[in-house]
Amino acid sequence: MKKKWEYIFYPRSVAIIGASSTPGKAGARRTASLLDGGYKGEIYFVNPRRDYIYGRKVYKSLKEIEGEVDLVLIAVSKRFLIDAVLDAAEKGAKAAVIITAGFTDATEEGRRLNKEILSIARKTGMRIIGPNCSGIFSASPKLNLLGLPPIKEGRLSVVSQSGNVIDSLVHYARLRDIGFSKIISVGNAIDLDISEYFEFLKDDPETKVILAYIEGIKNGGILIKIAREVTREKPIIAIKVGRTKAGSRAAHSHTGSMTGDDFICDEAFKQAGIIRVNAIDELFDIASMFDTDIPLPKGRGVAILSEGGGDNAIAADNVELFGLKVPTLSEETQRKLKPYLMEGVSISNPVDYGGRAEEAPHEIIPPCCRACLEDPSIDILLITGFFGGYKEIIGSYTEELEVKTANELVSLVKEYQKPIIVNTSFAREKIRSLEILRKNNIPVIESSIRTAHCIYALVKYSENKRKPIKFPTLPNLRTREGEEIIRRVYDKGHVSLLETEAREFLRSCGIPMIPDYFAKNLEDAIKGAEEIGYPVALKIVSRKIQHKYDVGGVKLGIMDKNELIKAFNEIMENVKRVTKEIEGVLILPMVPPPGKVECLASVIRDKNFGTILSFGLGGVFTEVFRDISVRVLPVTEEDVDSMIKEIKAYKILKGVRGKKPKDINAIKDLLLKLSKIAEDYPEIEEIELNPFMVHEKGISIVDTLITLRRRDV
Amino acid sequence: MKKKWEYIFYPRSVAIIGASSTPGKAGARRTASLLDGGYKGEIYFVNPRRDYIYGRKVYKSLKEIEGEVDLVLIAVSKRFLIDAVLDAAEKGAKAAVIITAGFTDATEEGRRLNKEILSIARKTGMRIIGPNCSGIFSASPKLNLLGLPPIKEGRLSVVSQSGNVIDSLVHYARLRDIGFSKIISVGNAIDLDISEYFEFLKDDPETKVILAYIEGIKNGGILIKIAREVTREKPIIAIKVGRTKAGSRAAHSHTGSMTGDDFICDEAFKQAGIIRVNAIDELFDIASMFDTDIPLPKGRGVAILSEGGGDNAIAADNVELFGLKVPTLSEETQRKLKPYLMEGVSISNPVDYGGRAEEAPHEIIPPCCRACLEDPSIDILLITGFFGGYKEIIGSYTEELEVKTANELVSLVKEYQKPIIVNTSFAREKIRSLEILRKNNIPVIESSIRTAHCIYALVKYSENKRKPIKFPTLPNLRTREGEEIIRRVYDKGHVSLLETEAREFLRSCGIPMIPDYFAKNLEDAIKGAEEIGYPVALKIVSRKIQHKYDVGGVKLGIMDKNELIKAFNEIMENVKRVTKEIEGVLILPMVPPPGKVECLASVIRDKNFGTILSFGLGGVFTEVFRDISVRVLPVTEEDVDSMIKEIKAYKILKGVRGKKPKDINAIKDLLLKLSKIAEDYPEIEEIELNPFMVHEKGISIVDTLITLRRRDV
Repeated sequence: MKKKWEYIFYPRSVAIIGASSTPGKAGARRTASLLDGGYKGEIYFVNPRRDYIYGRKVYKSLKEIEGEVDLVLIAVSKRFLIDAVLDAAEKGAKAAVIITAGFTDATEEGRRLNKEILSIARKTGMRIIGPNCSGIFSASPKLNLLGLPPIKEGRLSVVSQSGNVIDSLVHYARLRDIGFSKIISVGNAIDLDISEYFEFLKDDPETKVILAYIEGIKNGGILIKIAREVTREKPIIAIKVGRTKAGSRAAHSHTGSMTGDDFICDEAFKQAGIIRVNAIDELFDIASMFDTDIPLPKGRGVAILSEGGGDNAIAADNVELFGLKVPTLSEETQRKLKPYLMEGVSISNPVDYGGRAEEAPHEIIPPCCRACLEDPSIDILLITGFFGGYKEIIGSYTEELEVKTANELVSLVKEYQKPIIVNTSFAREKIRSLEILRKNNIPVIESSIRTAHCIYALVKYSENKRKPIKFPTLPNLRTREGEEIIRRVYDKGHVSLLETEAREFLRSCGIPMIPDYFAKNLEDAIKGAEEIGYPVALKIVSRKIQHKYDVGGVKLGIMDKNELIKAFNEIMENVKRVTKEIEGVLILPMVPPPGKVECLASVIRDKNFGTILSFGLGGVFTEVFRDISVRVLPVTEEDVDSMIKEIKAYKILKGVRGKKPKDINAIKDLLLKLSKIAEDYPEIEEIELNPFMVHEKGISIVDTLITLRRRDV
Repeated sequence: MKKKWEYIFYPRSVAIIGASSTPGKAGARRTASLLDGGYKGEIYFVNPRRDYIYGRKVYKSLKEIEGEVDLVLIAVSKRFLIDAVLDAAEKGAKAAVIITAGFTDATEEGRRLNKEILSIARKTGMRIIGPNCSGIFSASPKLNLLGLPPIKEGRLSVVSQSGNVIDSLVHYARLRDIGFSKIISVGNAIDLDISEYFEFLKDDPETKVILAYIEGIKNGGILIKIAREVTREKPIIAIKVGRTKAGSRAAHSHTGSMTGDDFICDEAFKQAGIIRVNAIDELFDIASMFDTDIPLPKGRGVAILSEGGGDNAIAADNVELFGLKVPTLSEETQRKLKPYLMEGVSISNPVDYGGRAEEAPHEIIPPCCRACLEDPSIDILLITGFFGGYKEIIGSYTEELEVKTANELVSLVKEYQKPIIVNTSFAREKIRSLEILRKNNIPVIESSIRTAHCIYALVKYSENKRKPIKFPTLPNLRTREGEEIIRRVYDKGHVSLLETEAREFLRSCGIPMIPDYFAKNLEDAIKGAEEIGYPVALKIVSRKIQHKYDVGGVKLGIMDKNELIKAFNEIMENVKRVTKEIEGVLILPMVPPPGKVECLASVIRDKNFGTILSFGLGGVFTEVFRDISVRVLPVTEEDVDSMIKEIKAYKILKGVRGKKPKDINAIKDLLLKLSKIAEDYPEIEEIELNPFMVHEKGISIVDTLITLRRRDV
């Protein structure tokens, strides 16, 4: 472990500036929780107005303390904050947890304070947690600086942008006997931020599962890159609020963080292997499952077993709704099951051992499970029905038999290294058989839907771990020609490229472009159209016009010279109503309609997540169906493959109803090149190709928009 | 109440044929549960091989009984079944609950047995519950014929196609102290079926909420029509399995019922106001909410309040994900709230009373709630955070304050007649304040997602109640001309109409059709094209060809005579490879492209739900996006309006990006007429118009498929 983390989570000594025993004070809650928690290291209380707190000596200032201070908690009011930070730095503290609240980067005062704190800290290398955070917890040194009642030790660690959610998590966990290793309230995160905490927890041997509550994302690109590494070692389960307008509003006034476009966030989390959930109970159900040594499934095949067809049907529906599979069991498996089942019940999966298991669960359930576990199409076993309730439902003599069954299930998991999950309405009761399961890596869950969700999370985590992280190696696409085009646009004081420039630029990057002709006047246009070959399309070229279609600046399907003359004149007439700055017209061949699919591709710079690559169905349906996939850069080859495959219109690209498949490789090549251009040309703000046509062989880019970053930024 | 129901649910006497005390026997469980339940009427046990059971006299046969027998439970093996039914009918029993299992309509033996039972019953008017059911329960006469331990009395009633799910529901409910009024296991439902039970429960004063578990639907049209009436009085909350392939497989081998196309089912349930859920816990959370006198919301506006921004943000996201609204509170409301909140917290909705409520919840929470309830944009109040946990979190002195707060919340609900719902992680604990809420029509729910789901169900139920059920009055569309076309097709031994016939038929029904011309040969085609006017489309007309496009039987965009000759010859060449039976070609004008939207409309006869009307986006995207809405006939005007509005492409129909709106009224007219044709022409099996073009004014039907029912059916 890096030294900096040791000072924070395993400090030899802690000082509280603003220590207090006055109820209601922020310092008082942390003073009490530090003492009540049983912290093992040295404790120093600092408060100029007190001599003793809880019978302990209080220092007037940090300077008075003789020993070394590793970690300082600052819980003073805003006006004393800078002095406290200065004191901490002077004392040589390695890190400061700043509780002090009431300012964010949204106000000038906030920006000034944050800047000052950071500059003091940078000078001595002191690290800052917060400000405006609610503290930290570290189980093994019994360090509770959260101001909360004693917290049970466990292997879940929390990184949260909200102190109040930490309270909720801790209360929820206490009611259900769940323990934590580290809890970190990140606050404004002016120094250490979520990514860094994730990196620390990845290597922390005391952390098995990472839980996160996220409101706003600042350096999303880095976060995703790091999370991608972390989730290969440990699961990250996150609530990210701001999915909706009101959620965003609540989070916004809460910490001043901006919640971004939720769609991008959702996709980025998937890309990084982060498991996103919507509520605290969901968070803990999934986290508790990962907080065991449950084997990871190798595929998506779920076998479902219970005492009855109804429970099985409910489970099967929920499992398949999460995109998991309930494969038909092999004939061999069904042959093995047969002796244990009644006549006429479901045997092919789900498996119904009702009518038999009730009499002797230990003789029926384990062999049925074994048969399913041996089936190569089965990766996960889901037992639903009323397991755990045998004593209550069938009679007390079955209690021992159920316990015996539970022990056998535990052995089966070890033997086959395939996960078993139990869904029962008795999950919340204290029942011996269920306790055995829980202690031995078999999760027991109350809700059928939640059970399916847990299996889904397990499968996704496992799939993610196996995904290769292979970044493509593309040659540098920056050329003198491309630089020259950009320089020219900047020199003229613009940031938007003319479509002619944009096409020239993309050509310089090695992107295949259909022929085009730039004509300054009608005569030239006639010549150009003949060169290109009829039918042609005509588009206005003017820096003043962003939306060519809307002003009547485009004519399609021009069949001959007469039509061209008419179209040229009409365009000019239309455009002149808007602007006099006309460069000329662009002539493109009409892309023949049969079999083409209109797609879109773009790279944009997002304020939260950095550079985003998008692909999807183009044209009029873009807005209606939002059939788009996005990835945060850098992308792996697998990212690009999956972003093509996951749009719904992929069906069309693959070739529907006997139609030939489209050129998927050409799309992949285009997306990889766009991502490389975004990397090689930091000047570029946005490239949008909407639509481009995908053919059986190759693509035709017919609409091109490129914008540069403003130079003064 | 109708007499028949009285005999079933309030019988004066019950006889069990196959009564027993031998563990494991189906009759034994019911014998025990009838006695243990404390049934108030006369009990008769019938079993030729026993003299006494539990010290009670046993009759050799039903005939020996002197008194009248209202209800007979038959729990004998299959081979004695018909005799038992005969006995019951002879004895004059009013109804028989048949537990006997092991046969369905899927086998010949099963069909024979079912038929025989029904014919015996019909003779005397005896009604049949089951066969292959697990029994019934009726709380007020203490009638437990389910073979389950005593069941708590309550106001929830259950109709279930699975006996095993009844077991699960009863166990689940017992653990959570939930009671029932009636429980009905419908079994094979050869006589009384789900619709009839729904109708009974609608008028049953002891039933407040109807729960259903459904595997397969037989007379869906009737079910939907009845349910639509029921849900105006009482909520129906249903699990319908078979959403997915495996769920359907599990249900299929379970009762032999066929689960149909889930999409139609989902839409039909919505149409009927049935609240569909996916799991038992979800079922009870929603049912328990309705089992109170909670006021019904008048709109979708939710105010969210808690002790912190994080919990608020989670709640707001979940509420909006369910399509509910979290409106910004009025300035007046915010002014009223201000004195109760800290500086800088969220006030516009969600409302964050954290930092203040903890000290004096009774002084902060009620006035904040009152302010929100007074806001006209607010229809529902959602309190999230840690209500119920004040004692544990803040200190024992807050217990009384929390209780006081709870009582004030109860008064507020009464005063404003707007629902309040509480979401807290303490929901499952025994806590005084929460008990007060629960007993006084304020649901307390653990999960944030489930809370949002409950609010959604409440809103949907309330909206449904207010929807007018107004069936359109259209004139009869059956004409002699239409009948003649159908007769002609039947006479030739066909069921598919030629496209020319189909167009003629639709015209006879008063559906606006674009001009067309049927040509038998090239010469005629040239004449026809000139009459129609170029550009035209050419389509083959042949009874042997279903998919004209696939065989090269269609040419579009023919510009002149030369092209027409070429196209005609090509079509003939293509089609002759497939068949020699060619009637000729159909000539249609090309529908001009600008601004048209391709849609589809159809009526089909569904084996589960009867006649189904569909509308959606047509053309190539139909299969990819399945952007379709369906309704079961008969449809109300509101049904047709909403089915147009709910497809995603409605955005395009309304006019996107400054484009003019399309002719929605013409679509509505078409859909209403199609539904009337389906009613007036029982001969018709299917009409599909895909695509038809929707313009700014009017529609153009360009593809028409009509199939008749086979005459032998």
